[in-house]
Amino acid sequence: MSQVIATYLIHDVKDLEKKAEGIALGLTVGSWTDLPLLEQEQLRKHKGTVISIIPLEENERTNQYLGKKVNRALVKIAYPSANFSADLPAILTTVFGKLSLDGEVKLIDLQFSNELKQAFPGPRYGIEGIRKKLGVYDRPLVMSIFKGVIGRSLEYLSEQLKEQALGGVDLIKDDEILFENERTPFEKRIAVGKAVLQEVYEKTGQKTLYAVNLSGKTFELKDKAKRAVELGADILLFNVFAYGLDVLQGLREDKEIEIPIMAHPAVSGALTSSEFYGIASPLLLGKLLRLAGADFSLFPSPYGSVALDKSEAQSIADELTKEDEQLKRTFPVPSAGIHPGLVPLLVRDFGNDCVINAGGGVHGHPDGAVGGGKAFRSAVAAVLSGRSLHEAAKENEALKKAIALWGAHEVNV
Amino acid sequence: MSQVIATYLIHDVKDLEKKAEGIALGLTVGSWTDLPLLEQEQLRKHKGTVISIIPLEENERTNQYLGKKVNRALVKIAYPSANFSADLPAILTTVFGKLSLDGEVKLIDLQFSNELKQAFPGPRYGIEGIRKKLGVYDRPLVMSIFKGVIGRSLEYLSEQLKEQALGGVDLIKDDEILFENERTPFEKRIAVGKAVLQEVYEKTGQKTLYAVNLSGKTFELKDKAKRAVELGADILLFNVFAYGLDVLQGLREDKEIEIPIMAHPAVSGALTSSEFYGIASPLLLGKLLRLAGADFSLFPSPYGSVALDKSEAQSIADELTKEDEQLKRTFPVPSAGIHPGLVPLLVRDFGNDCVINAGGGVHGHPDGAVGGGKAFRSAVAAVLSGRSLHEAAKENEALKKAIALWGAHEVNV
Ligand SMILES: [Mg+2]
Ligand SMILES: [Mg+2]
Repeated sequence: MSQVIATYLIHDVKDLEKKAEGIALGLTVGSWTDLPLLEQEQLRKHKGTVISIIPLEENERTNQYLGKKVNRALVKIAYPSANFSADLPAILTTVFGKLSLDGEVKLIDLQFSNELKQAFPGPRYGIEGIRKKLGVYDRPLVMSIFKGVIGRSLEYLSEQLKEQALGGVDLIKDDEILFENERTPFEKRIAVGKAVLQEVYEKTGQKTLYAVNLSGKTFELKDKAKRAVELGADILLFNVFAYGLDVLQGLREDKEIEIPIMAHPAVSGALTSSEFYGIASPLLLGKLLRLAGADFSLFPSPYGSVALDKSEAQSIADELTKEDEQLKRTFPVPSAGIHPGLVPLLVRDFGNDCVINAGGGVHGHPDGAVGGGKAFRSAVAAVLSGRSLHEAAKENEALKKAIALWGAHEVNV
Repeated sequence: MSQVIATYLIHDVKDLEKKAEGIALGLTVGSWTDLPLLEQEQLRKHKGTVISIIPLEENERTNQYLGKKVNRALVKIAYPSANFSADLPAILTTVFGKLSLDGEVKLIDLQFSNELKQAFPGPRYGIEGIRKKLGVYDRPLVMSIFKGVIGRSLEYLSEQLKEQALGGVDLIKDDEILFENERTPFEKRIAVGKAVLQEVYEKTGQKTLYAVNLSGKTFELKDKAKRAVELGADILLFNVFAYGLDVLQGLREDKEIEIPIMAHPAVSGALTSSEFYGIASPLLLGKLLRLAGADFSLFPSPYGSVALDKSEAQSIADELTKEDEQLKRTFPVPSAGIHPGLVPLLVRDFGNDCVINAGGGVHGHPDGAVGGGKAFRSAVAAVLSGRSLHEAAKENEALKKAIALWGAHEVNV
């Protein structure tokens, strides 16, 4: 049957079964046992169904915080596709509309039936498509981020871009807080970026893709994105959670916007951070971004000051990359607090199919962004060939300086 | 200066001033004291500024829950408009993009300078415009909600609509979980609704407006809304938080979509419910919905089982209705758990300029929706003329039955 099964973490002072049944009916046909048999027959295919209730251990800390003794459970409820149109706003409203306002309840997961999943595009390029664009198949990609570019000139940006590319990074992304502005407007950034990266390519053979921040009003995004494609933009960076998941999907589904989309997690912490409320990050930053069509998903790494639990970050990556016959895979981009000395941990925790993304870890290098990029590339090469960073640093000055500054987390793989 | 000032509730184990300064710089120019003087001069107009830090009392419950002793403060930071385009996605990304992921920080308020506010439309009709449509100027409006309509026929819906209108309600809204479907498609609901309500009007003189649920994919909404206008729809119901605030604004700003918009709070609890994270409800369901252009904002009443604190609900209503030279006022619609016996409380807490909205409190009346509507209208009339509900019930059978069933909360105004 075509349906979506929602998993919730619920807290209730009383009867968990009654609570679960109340959700299943309240978000579908409204009532059941008091309906005449004929109406039950007619409405059966619309009725929500409690699939399972898994009670969790009582949690003293939770009880203390909520000031009452609560029963906790993971509850799975199935919602028939007959109840909603096959779009994320309808699905989110069905499974977590009114319910999001109803006490301590967190949406943990959504399982889409294969039939329902067909309504979603998934990434246009995915990991394989991005690798093909770059010609890089056998290692994690390296990305760097513009820093401190608000109020700066095009020359300043283009100089930064050049330095980063010369260091050998595969991808460079706009700062997500750089919006349409007079000094470095969107179209000019694309044109100038293209020229600079072409120059570096011709000089060094290094191919680097630039993700430009697609911003502005929702209903003007498509035209702007199409203009970007015309101008030869490589990738669109998109603050999807400041807009809506379905806006991302709309961009992905437009045949004329045929470049990859990189989803930034800005604002998503407002939805994911609480253990009692909101939406779990593996669902939001993992499964739903992939369904909606992001080619890359950035999320906090487990290593920095703005950090996720390692298991949570890995669950996001797992949702983005696990095999699915219907959907391409999305590049996980664990971000924040990354420096070259962390590459062994990143590869251990996220494998080959991830993007190693750094801001300060590139720009803060003693030799500048060029040195930062080189140090990262050297660290990646070392890890993949089974060498320690310290060993590799003997032959690579940039890596040596990076390790001296930030340290190295050697890992025995 | 054109700017937005954000107020945050922050929690920090260490230095609050350092934390605040870090936010102000990190979300704008990146760094400051280490910049050459010339660059400081050039970037000064882009620099975020800490306006105030108001330390709050230590909270034992918070410390216990977080497992560490934290300093709490309300921090105000000003962000120059020069840094962002004048749209909500850019503003939200600036003030709460990365920051939403950075520990226990909640966005409490945004103060828009008058110049910045000019970029936002506010409601097209607002309270005055809606009152004019209805010809009702001197009392709270009464609204009822369809119930249990998934899987039902057009005849079933039209019968419900008729009953509700005959009870004398001013507004009737679709169930927010009714999406595009074969049995009761959007366009047919509009056409059938129009005919039924016209019939009631001709028979009784009762004017009732019907809010039809605008749903589907984001980039198809405008065409669908325009078609609704052509068909004579009264109001669009919109699950704005399943889409994005800027989608609402885009609908509001389209000159061809010249009917009121009713914002439903579905999914918003995922953003507002935590005391540590997310966005405060007076900002999200109050100020931002008004700026973006909602004519009505539904939010949980303080009286039901799905409830907000009274002060929180009143703060939402205050944001929607306080005087503003640039923006029309939005109708507050405190919802859930409302029955006729609560009307005295509603008028005391929300005044005349609100919509009294009920589902079960209309449909669950012993005489059905007709009785429910009548009981509400009678209760409203009683309260406004300074009579108690018990007194009014002596002359109104519907109100009498409602009070017998649900009780009455008399209030001495
Ligand atoms: Mg950034
Ligand atoms: Mg409803």
